[in-house]
Amino acid sequence: MEEPTIIGQPFPQLDAVSLADGTAEFCSDIRLPGMLYGKILRSPLAHARVMNIDTSRAERLPGVKAVITGQDTSGVAYSYWVELLDTTLLDKHPLAMEKVRYVGDELAAVAAIDEEIAKEALELITVDYQELPAVFDPEEAMDAGAPLLHAKERNISVEMHLNHGEVERELARADYIREERFVSPAVGHCQLEGHNCLVSWEGDKITIWSATQSPISIRTHLSRMLGISPSKVRVITPHVGGGFGGRAEMLGFEYCTALLSLKTGRPVKTNLDREEVFSATRVRHPQVVYLKTGVKKDGTILAQEARLISNNGAYNGWGPVGLFLSTTFLTAPFRIPNFKCDSYLVYTNTPIGGPMRGFGAPQVRFAADSHLDGIARELGLDIAEIMLKNAIQPGDEHDHFNVTSFGVSEAIAKATQMANWKARRGNLGPARGLGIGCHIHESGAHRNPYMGFTAEVRVHEDGRVTLLTGAVDVGQGARTVLAQIVAEEFGVRLEDVVVARQDTEVTPLDHGTFSSRVTFWTGNAVKAAAADAKRKLLEAAAQKLEANPQDLVARDRRVFVKGTPEKGLPMDEAVSCYNLLSKGDTLVGHGFFSLPVNKINLSTGEGRHSSPLSSGATVAEVEVDTETGMVKVIRLITAHDCGRALNPLAVEGQLNGAVLMGKGYALSEHLCWEGGSTMNASFTDYRLPSAADTPELSPIIVESPDPLGPFGAKECGEGPLISVAPALANAVNNALGVRIKELPLTPEKVLKALEKARG
Amino acid sequence: MEEPTIIGQPFPQLDAVSLADGTAEFCSDIRLPGMLYGKILRSPLAHARVMNIDTSRAERLPGVKAVITGQDTSGVAYSYWVELLDTTLLDKHPLAMEKVRYVGDELAAVAAIDEEIAKEALELITVDYQELPAVFDPEEAMDAGAPLLHAKERNISVEMHLNHGEVERELARADYIREERFVSPAVGHCQLEGHNCLVSWEGDKITIWSATQSPISIRTHLSRMLGISPSKVRVITPHVGGGFGGRAEMLGFEYCTALLSLKTGRPVKTNLDREEVFSATRVRHPQVVYLKTGVKKDGTILAQEARLISNNGAYNGWGPVGLFLSTTFLTAPFRIPNFKCDSYLVYTNTPIGGPMRGFGAPQVRFAADSHLDGIARELGLDIAEIMLKNAIQPGDEHDHFNVTSFGVSEAIAKATQMANWKARRGNLGPARGLGIGCHIHESGAHRNPYMGFTAEVRVHEDGRVTLLTGAVDVGQGARTVLAQIVAEEFGVRLEDVVVARQDTEVTPLDHGTFSSRVTFWTGNAVKAAAADAKRKLLEAAAQKLEANPQDLVARDRRVFVKGTPEKGLPMDEAVSCYNLLSKGDTLVGHGFFSLPVNKINLSTGEGRHSSPLSSGATVAEVEVDTETGMVKVIRLITAHDCGRALNPLAVEGQLNGAVLMGKGYALSEHLCWEGGSTMNASFTDYRLPSAADTPELSPIIVESPDPLGPFGAKECGEGPLISVAPALANAVNNALGVRIKELPLTPEKVLKALEKARG
Repeated sequence: MEEPTIIGQPFPQLDAVSLADGTAEFCSDIRLPGMLYGKILRSPLAHARVMNIDTSRAERLPGVKAVITGQDTSGVAYSYWVELLDTTLLDKHPLAMEKVRYVGDELAAVAAIDEEIAKEALELITVDYQELPAVFDPEEAMDAGAPLLHAKERNISVEMHLNHGEVERELARADYIREERFVSPAVGHCQLEGHNCLVSWEGDKITIWSATQSPISIRTHLSRMLGISPSKVRVITPHVGGGFGGRAEMLGFEYCTALLSLKTGRPVKTNLDREEVFSATRVRHPQVVYLKTGVKKDGTILAQEARLISNNGAYNGWGPVGLFLSTTFLTAPFRIPNFKCDSYLVYTNTPIGGPMRGFGAPQVRFAADSHLDGIARELGLDIAEIMLKNAIQPGDEHDHFNVTSFGVSEAIAKATQMANWKARRGNLGPARGLGIGCHIHESGAHRNPYMGFTAEVRVHEDGRVTLLTGAVDVGQGARTVLAQIVAEEFGVRLEDVVVARQDTEVTPLDHGTFSSRVTFWTGNAVKAAAADAKRKLLEAAAQKLEANPQDLVARDRRVFVKGTPEKGLPMDEAVSCYNLLSKGDTLVGHGFFSLPVNKINLSTGEGRHSSPLSSGATVAEVEVDTETGMVKVIRLITAHDCGRALNPLAVEGQLNGAVLMGKGYALSEHLCWEGGSTMNASFTDYRLPSAADTPELSPIIVESPDPLGPFGAKECGEGPLISVAPALANAVNNALGVRIKELPLTPEKVLKALEKARG
Repeated sequence: MEEPTIIGQPFPQLDAVSLADGTAEFCSDIRLPGMLYGKILRSPLAHARVMNIDTSRAERLPGVKAVITGQDTSGVAYSYWVELLDTTLLDKHPLAMEKVRYVGDELAAVAAIDEEIAKEALELITVDYQELPAVFDPEEAMDAGAPLLHAKERNISVEMHLNHGEVERELARADYIREERFVSPAVGHCQLEGHNCLVSWEGDKITIWSATQSPISIRTHLSRMLGISPSKVRVITPHVGGGFGGRAEMLGFEYCTALLSLKTGRPVKTNLDREEVFSATRVRHPQVVYLKTGVKKDGTILAQEARLISNNGAYNGWGPVGLFLSTTFLTAPFRIPNFKCDSYLVYTNTPIGGPMRGFGAPQVRFAADSHLDGIARELGLDIAEIMLKNAIQPGDEHDHFNVTSFGVSEAIAKATQMANWKARRGNLGPARGLGIGCHIHESGAHRNPYMGFTAEVRVHEDGRVTLLTGAVDVGQGARTVLAQIVAEEFGVRLEDVVVARQDTEVTPLDHGTFSSRVTFWTGNAVKAAAADAKRKLLEAAAQKLEANPQDLVARDRRVFVKGTPEKGLPMDEAVSCYNLLSKGDTLVGHGFFSLPVNKINLSTGEGRHSSPLSSGATVAEVEVDTETGMVKVIRLITAHDCGRALNPLAVEGQLNGAVLMGKGYALSEHLCWEGGSTMNASFTDYRLPSAADTPELSPIIVESPDPLGPFGAKECGEGPLISVAPALANAVNNALGVRIKELPLTPEKVLKALEKARG
């Protein structure tokens, strides 16, 4: 293959200008004639039986066009991709049927001619509750006597008991055994665009514009819940102001908006306000992680026993999948030859957990790498050395991952080298420290044997192309990277590729933009589509050029004989050849990509991840103010193996964004729940780091081209977040000698730890 | 093949409810944030040199955001599908560069924050003219000394000299020779939705929503005129309120709106008002037709010599193609073994001629069948007998048509039979009469060897399907008929087919809805797409059923073994089989259709029509009020050979609509031009027949399945209009014994003819 000219170049995003000048259309920009506004009535109680809902006063309010409650929903329930897993996991009604189970749970929905009237109507709805005892702590919720949320014997949605190797035997052989408990909090995604949607019916067909990461998920759910064919559900996603996993599934308000529109015969738009986004969409699962690890004197890991309690919140959402991910992400990027884990997904009367950047990994990698740092300190070894010693290597056999390429060792080496780790660690002066953490992620999970990834490339008469894909760009630049793949493969320039807007009615099926799938999965489909179009083009051009198709190359808007560039045709003439020879058929390339689908077992935790592994390491340098307990981050060096950086500018953007999000998770962010209520559901009270808090960032791109990746590419948007919290916790330990085992590392906790250490 | 169950059934239109209840979205319903309104300044003079345009006062008017003149257009010119014909025919600037050539010619365009301000701004633009002598009559315009519109030696855009056989020799052999002159007027399309468009730019990409019949034509023109790739021009056509040929080409206001939007950086909408639609879009070409025909005593036609003068108006538009059509439509549906025609497309200072329902045929068939009626009367023969004697028969060789099927004889027989022609004609009492006319049309012209017709069928997990087509439904029911083709071919029900909205960015290429092409051309592509999807489906189902794919049938949502219906699968299970076997690929069918493209020669008139011929006959019964001259239509019986009626309800709707439009053309409609100004450019003054004027309509469907048609179908939307005017003129002659040779047959003309006859 020739050296790529477009792949590997740092192109700015195709949509950069329209995003910057405000002409880019977001869902909330769209208005339809006669449009109504929807609002949701939410429970103020964490746990209660709903005895009666009286909507009559609200219905009489002028300007109110419809009020719906659970009675109007025919009792349909939903969860995540239920069709692929156990439908007994379906536990959420879009509007409460008998009980509310968390503060924010949906009770009723209103459509009115404006948002003010809709809000006023909510206040006129009277709900009679019978309050029930609530439980907020997941470990308490597991107790036999705890108040039960659902009609189950215990508050455990899923439990998984994984057991590989001979853990007890190997622990008995260990030179050193360490046992610890780590805790991580709930945090919010903080997308700058709030959740919103607009629904319109035409006859028996519904169109929904939604700021979603997964149009197909909305299509699947609405189709099932409304009892209509998926062919009659059209989901359109304009530009999206950030996803981070918080838009990976249909939420109840989208179904309610559809129902309000159906009932009123008018388009309905619902915007969630920031308080609702924080308290009633999804949060990263809070977890308690118990680790017991046995190592040899030289730091070689022999065995690990874990117990993982994940707070599901009141309903499942993607929790069961998250539990599998957390459990398996404990087993990499380091070799743990004997591993045992008991994992529990526990219901509590708190907001619902869901996917969030790094899904399943940040909690356990914080625990595991803090734990490893403790082991290193105890053994008097360099943690970076231990990491390198135990790092998984390409080609390793693994119970849960296909290690087709793996660059964690190179990432550790590069990050520590840039930090001058060996020389500087321990020599930075008082209250300053260096720490390291590692991460791993997969390049998109895929578990649907009926639906792979498809793409279409249409070639115009001038040789320019349109790419049709169902993948959504959530701001990360997916459209740009996919266009680069097409341009490189088909032999045109980046500006010659138009990426059509996603619209489930017309663009090919795609699973959506979550689990870091776009570049790998959609990218492979897109590459195949461009290759298919090129194959047809070269066959036609070969006739004209009197050459063999396999001797032809398409490159920079020309088709020519390899090695004889002057013997060729401009792209538009080559397309004309195709069109004429085909008697006027359009030059279209079809692409499809999938890999064998591995089932996961939600009892045993058995099952393999679907796609190649990204990995990396963060080295953090901190200075702690021992008076205030404030952790000041001096520098974050993150090396990430993305297989191949198709667009280094975009990869660095992802690295920096992820690292900053990881820093917020590590140091300041957490949703404060009191009595089930979210006490800081605003950007004023929720401590999201601002641009002013940005330390020196040093992203390092590590490349280990994966044989399965398009041009070798793997994941890059989630992984780098994961290693930041353990790196910072370990840096604080390096600075102060204290170990904080609960995120975030707030000044209060630092001071408390210092006090405890002092005496 | 099994007997169809969906083809041939009278389904109401899929969009019937949304069209009736007002929820169907038309272009004018769409509003975008920040949208401006465009207005066009038009010439009040028929012919003038433009010395200066001063826009400064308009630009200063608050609320005006841009004013453009010809200077802003870089001098680009346009016409119809120029890329396929002689580019010297490009004669129209979107905004006048040096001259205006008709009353209504575009001079400048304004974008303002509302329509009132835009109109006010037009009044503030000062234009200095040097008025030039004008010419309005096409025969006068051909004179050597006539004022010249363009930089040509004469006002003739195209002249065509056709000569088949030995006309002079055969005329010399004739028993009777008749020589006459016929005249037809300009009429308007009178679509209920006026012309309008909305343009928005995002970066270097333009989106235009246009109420057009041919999105691809707009894409092609805008791309060329704006100097951007067609891939960056997105044309979306929502529901359209009637086309009739008046929206078959891009008009200048669409380009101006694009330029205003580019200049202002804001979306711009332009609505033409009714006066503009009547006077400054397109009209049916007025024609003067001279005929000289020699026949044998028994009515056998020996030879015909014709001279055809078509008034082009000030610019070409589709006039050159129309001239070819008019000329060749003189040669059918009757055998004229020796034929000679001199045809001229003549510029005058009047509105521009363009395609209109029956394009090219109504004028010449009025002349030819009136002429034939005169011959019959002179020979003492029954015109219906003469028609049957001379009618072209299936399989005939013809210079301009491929006569793959032809039902005109059956149509004549059925229409006269229903009218009880033989018994009643001549016996209806005073001032009552019966007349007959015939028609012919093709099922869509196609002359682009680079671009055929494509369609795509996507099959959903539940076995329902989405059809992707670029064809536009202009109200005639195209979407419904295409959905029937898919349902029949793929084996589902009509309600299982969703027809995606046209959008050039995502739907397959289609030439547009004009020249009655959709059912035949697009229908064939759609049928091929459904067949392709079915082939793949049956191959997968065959594995499951352990059968041969060729033994399987798909029908009514099931796939089963032919003759053993119980051995089968429901459609959704069959689709699952496909999806699993293909490892998750979507079941998609691709369809393509084209026929060899015949060039036409604009000098010699040589060239063949592209597609199968529809034909038919109208018998009209009238009673004339000899006091007022008013022609009262008692009944119109129209028999039309549509090959096969895929949807008899839709075919009857087309027949009735066309016949009523033909009646308006025959009796009352004409655009009154005085000094080049349109004096009746409103629905008040333009005498469009209303529902109250509807006579008894008796549509008769004649079927002669064409081997090339999808399920045998041919044209049905245009042909039936054509035979109405001659039938009515002949009926008036039968009632009164007078021959009126100029349309429309107004009371004034009837009285004048009666007076003349009385002496």
